[in-house]
Amino acid sequence: MLFVGVDIGGTGIQAGVVNEEGKILYRKECATKVEDGFEKVMDDINILVRSLLGENDLDIYEINSIGFGVPSFINKKGLVTAVNLGWYEVEFIESLKNKFPEVKVYAENDATVAAVGEAKFGSMKGKDIAVMYTLGTGVGGGIIINGRAFTGANGMGSEIGHAIIGENYFDCNCGNNGCLETFCSATAIIKYAQKLIEEGRESIILDMAEGDIKTINAKMVFDSYREGDVVALETVNRFKLYLSKAMASMVNTLDPDIISIGGGVSRASDIILEGLDELVRQHILYKKEDFTDIVCATLGADAGIIGAAFLS
Amino acid sequence: MLFVGVDIGGTGIQAGVVNEEGKILYRKECATKVEDGFEKVMDDINILVRSLLGENDLDIYEINSIGFGVPSFINKKGLVTAVNLGWYEVEFIESLKNKFPEVKVYAENDATVAAVGEAKFGSMKGKDIAVMYTLGTGVGGGIIINGRAFTGANGMGSEIGHAIIGENYFDCNCGNNGCLETFCSATAIIKYAQKLIEEGRESIILDMAEGDIKTINAKMVFDSYREGDVVALETVNRFKLYLSKAMASMVNTLDPDIISIGGGVSRASDIILEGLDELVRQHILYKKEDFTDIVCATLGADAGIIGAAFLS
Repeated sequence: MLFVGVDIGGTGIQAGVVNEEGKILYRKECATKVEDGFEKVMDDINILVRSLLGENDLDIYEINSIGFGVPSFINKKGLVTAVNLGWYEVEFIESLKNKFPEVKVYAENDATVAAVGEAKFGSMKGKDIAVMYTLGTGVGGGIIINGRAFTGANGMGSEIGHAIIGENYFDCNCGNNGCLETFCSATAIIKYAQKLIEEGRESIILDMAEGDIKTINAKMVFDSYREGDVVALETVNRFKLYLSKAMASMVNTLDPDIISIGGGVSRASDIILEGLDELVRQHILYKKEDFTDIVCATLGADAGIIGAAFLS
Repeated sequence: MLFVGVDIGGTGIQAGVVNEEGKILYRKECATKVEDGFEKVMDDINILVRSLLGENDLDIYEINSIGFGVPSFINKKGLVTAVNLGWYEVEFIESLKNKFPEVKVYAENDATVAAVGEAKFGSMKGKDIAVMYTLGTGVGGGIIINGRAFTGANGMGSEIGHAIIGENYFDCNCGNNGCLETFCSATAIIKYAQKLIEEGRESIILDMAEGDIKTINAKMVFDSYREGDVVALETVNRFKLYLSKAMASMVNTLDPDIISIGGGVSRASDIILEGLDELVRQHILYKKEDFTDIVCATLGADAGIIGAAFLS
């Protein structure tokens, strides 16, 4: 049986035909022409999927279902508001059904989709209760309960990047203070390193950025950490401390079988995972018990296509 | 069909025969002789349940199942460590099965049991995804998913009183800083009012305590709030602010149909619920969407017997 997964991002749309083993057999992509508006982007998605199938001699009736990941929340009415697509309460689910009347369609938030992919074929494979933190520009999340995507009563759950876990020196884009996203996103890591350097601390991070503080990225911070740079050490340790507080609260709340860390930040998996388990243990309630395995994601960017393909 | 629910507390054990409509038909209680040790308490529970049945001409084979609530975590092996019962890794589930071989037995943490009761017959009746905060000396929690008690992969979930939601001026009993319990338990309310008074603030709370700061209780704080006392106002507002942060994080994570507040503190339900909805809305991510109803528990102390009776 074959499945199609479509990962709709702010700059590009990736589509893939996936087999039952989670292998992407064929793939095709196109640009997201945000400026052309919702209807045109939906037309482009239709063309993308149908040409992906046509070019590989597949009939749409051979496809079990098509799943879509969107950088947004999908409300109970199927409406989507996705700021970086310029969509405001667009009839996304209705439009998908109209474009693809021949086949079942499913859609979820992209972080939830990534969690489904990791739970089906990646780092969280075969786990009943699984939580994924996607650490990138922001912090997204996906929750799997009884093997299926869980987004709550109104579809707005699993936004674990906006769990309030402390007090921070700047507010979150969502208007609150203390969201996990403001401690543990790539943006948060960059901001904190910049803050320390602006306060006069010396660091090789600034050398890596060729003296331009604005061009610092998270990779430079992790690379400097490897060199023993004190500012990088302080920045990464703060990141890990708050990540462990968030994960401990998650263990105390959902007690998952496994927690997986994905997103761009997880490329520094060796640094992130080192001692994290012990740090989480310090912050949970039942410190002597076996608890949640903590790992990094394994599917990389493909989780978007694979997870979407296996939505149900 | 009849069910038996047993609520095991640090001072007393309550047992009840409950019908299918959640009505307690007969009840009986005994003291918890903590000092006699685990085996003796289990014997007392056996005697309590059997005499409750005998006195009401009921045969144990007429009972569908017996459920138990304990002030503790039950691990995967059925072992219980309950500090205020003086139990350390006792074989609780094994012992229950030996005492009551004629009938199915179930057991859960008491806050989870209360949530089951409220979800079956009380404030959260008929809701698929429901969360209960029990605000008492500490803060307990119960999570219902798909209508059933959810405690996670290792049974240590739903301890939402130990979600880390900020930074506090004193540490939690669990060893961490910033647990919900340190902001929103009765103990936390008392401590904060005492702190303000010790700092020299005038308050009628102290008059209610007849000048003895050590005897302040949460009821005095809420009663003083009704009188417009500024220290009480500040204390209650702080409590509500952090409660709203915890609930907003819960909405962002599990997006429940309903959240119910139980425990002793919820007796001041009018004060607690006033404006709480709006405060939670301010702290959630999707501020314009319909979200979780927030209510107070309705079964009171009976939730312990009723919820235990309907464990499955």
